[in-house]
Amino acid sequence: MKTADAMAPWATANKLAWAPLMFHAAKAARDLKVLLAVEQAKGGATREEVAATTNLSLYAAGVLLDTCEAMDLLERKEDRFRLLPAGWLVEHDPMTRIHMDFNADCNYRGAEFLKESLVTGKPVGLKTLSGAPHIYEALSELPEPAKTSWFKFDHFYSDQVFPLAKPMVLQRKPKSLLDVGGNTGKFALLMGADVPVTILDHPGQLNVAMANAKAAGLQERVKGIEMDLLDHSRPFPANQDAVWMSQFVCCFGLDDIVALLRRGAQALSKDGRLYVLDTFWDRQKNPVAAYCLHATSLYFTAMANGTSRIYSAPDLIACAKKAGLVVEEDLSVGHSHTLLVCKPG
Amino acid sequence: MKTADAMAPWATANKLAWAPLMFHAAKAARDLKVLLAVEQAKGGATREEVAATTNLSLYAAGVLLDTCEAMDLLERKEDRFRLLPAGWLVEHDPMTRIHMDFNADCNYRGAEFLKESLVTGKPVGLKTLSGAPHIYEALSELPEPAKTSWFKFDHFYSDQVFPLAKPMVLQRKPKSLLDVGGNTGKFALLMGADVPVTILDHPGQLNVAMANAKAAGLQERVKGIEMDLLDHSRPFPANQDAVWMSQFVCCFGLDDIVALLRRGAQALSKDGRLYVLDTFWDRQKNPVAAYCLHATSLYFTAMANGTSRIYSAPDLIACAKKAGLVVEEDLSVGHSHTLLVCKPG
Repeated sequence: MKTADAMAPWATANKLAWAPLMFHAAKAARDLKVLLAVEQAKGGATREEVAATTNLSLYAAGVLLDTCEAMDLLERKEDRFRLLPAGWLVEHDPMTRIHMDFNADCNYRGAEFLKESLVTGKPVGLKTLSGAPHIYEALSELPEPAKTSWFKFDHFYSDQVFPLAKPMVLQRKPKSLLDVGGNTGKFALLMGADVPVTILDHPGQLNVAMANAKAAGLQERVKGIEMDLLDHSRPFPANQDAVWMSQFVCCFGLDDIVALLRRGAQALSKDGRLYVLDTFWDRQKNPVAAYCLHATSLYFTAMANGTSRIYSAPDLIACAKKAGLVVEEDLSVGHSHTLLVCKPG
Repeated sequence: MKTADAMAPWATANKLAWAPLMFHAAKAARDLKVLLAVEQAKGGATREEVAATTNLSLYAAGVLLDTCEAMDLLERKEDRFRLLPAGWLVEHDPMTRIHMDFNADCNYRGAEFLKESLVTGKPVGLKTLSGAPHIYEALSELPEPAKTSWFKFDHFYSDQVFPLAKPMVLQRKPKSLLDVGGNTGKFALLMGADVPVTILDHPGQLNVAMANAKAAGLQERVKGIEMDLLDHSRPFPANQDAVWMSQFVCCFGLDDIVALLRRGAQALSKDGRLYVLDTFWDRQKNPVAAYCLHATSLYFTAMANGTSRIYSAPDLIACAKKAGLVVEEDLSVGHSHTLLVCKPG
């Protein structure tokens, strides 16, 4: 919708007030191929043409076209609709698609319990997907389509950045690497040929990672140790040249992060380094990225653990200091990640 | 979020993609009094001050403050947050509050079934509130808080406009008025002292309306007749000087509207008039109103009946013509309503 400046706050407030229905209208227009039908029609498409192309009723096509115009996904000139750039992004941009599916499939039902999660410090919304106390224990057994959408979201960010981070770690020629919270083993498999890797994670994730290592012929180079990472009385395996924590610290509250960093620091070899790779909301190159990261914090609150979030870089640097580490290098990696290279202070 | 123009489509698309969590964050910030705490602090409030005022953890206050800043409900200067106009509206504007509650309490869970509703032409989302085939049969028995939020939404629009419409009807000095789909009897009670009223509606609504009429001492002036309004073989009671259809035609598909208007026309006395009072999306004075009405169509699709919507004025005028009526007067009433005064053509 186009508004005069005086109406802009009304638009902001009422887009929020109607967000649930409009979210599903945008997603339905994508999934029922209404956006595609408009895009592929030369000179735009009428309601009747879209109904014919998509096999929808005139009513259904009309409701979706009108709401998509209101959402600035389409524009209308006389009786013909044309795709606008935001509509193109909803249809074609991989990031937007992954975000929308993550929210529809993983977070939609649980988001209803955001307030209760904030008040209790527990991820109350997770009960809509699993009986586990935190999402990490449940990942390998999430119902579909939540499971696929969760891993697409997680991997979308890590897949871009792991190849960029790899040489930053290997330049110190580590002879051992501890991957704390190694998830499905993506980074471990990328590194395994160059350095032996030990993954620490929950049993469910570890089984997946070990199967992936075996399939890649890296079973001699990538090992796994089951560990409840929140049991801070359990030390990490010692004498590591590199301790790696990627998209990991955001999964914990500040006190646990300090304890985890301290256990990581204690596991380092004499010249070892601890690497924190994560997305910080204050280090983004554009406000849309920061917006998406702030929204991601709500997933951590309602669905993941009830206590963690996307942090600012100063938040994390303060944790490192409390854990007895100093940040030796502070590097931008890819579009949205930061790599903090830490050593004992 | 403030974006350069090139990023605006990315902002539009990703606000949609994250809409469910952000909707609940805005509502939680309202309901947990975070917006109020910021507003009432002179010179803005820090995270620590908001946590203290609201009895939330620093974590919960921080997540809500950061997401509200991303949503342009708050602004941050150094470590202090201040309320922005859109945040004021979320907290204080009755319309925005009623919209948000209507969507949270009535539509949120059912919105997940929007796509299925569009494909089948049935309000599949209604199963999240009731086993009835349409919402109208279920209104008097909706679970709370859905029931309260539904009626607040419905009455918010009708309460403003009924007193304005009353003299427009009375100026013709009708001696009988048929209120088709009279709901809880608000209009009938307003008119009853001046003209005898007969309400047609479902039994559940009619019982409520009759109880209200009795409480107002109007039981001799306001009568009710139970009727399945979609049984087009049943004529309306005849010889009416005024047939009244308020926020009614939007509850039906176009074919049913034509049949209902025809039954209304057949019930008119010699000089009687049929009145259609409704909100048309093309008759709004600002784009935010049109946006809210388009979004309301999605409620009709997923929750109410699967076949109706907010129409344009030309849609309705075409229906009247098909029903053998001509529009004698076309009047703007209040902020967002149109009154079509029709007579047999």
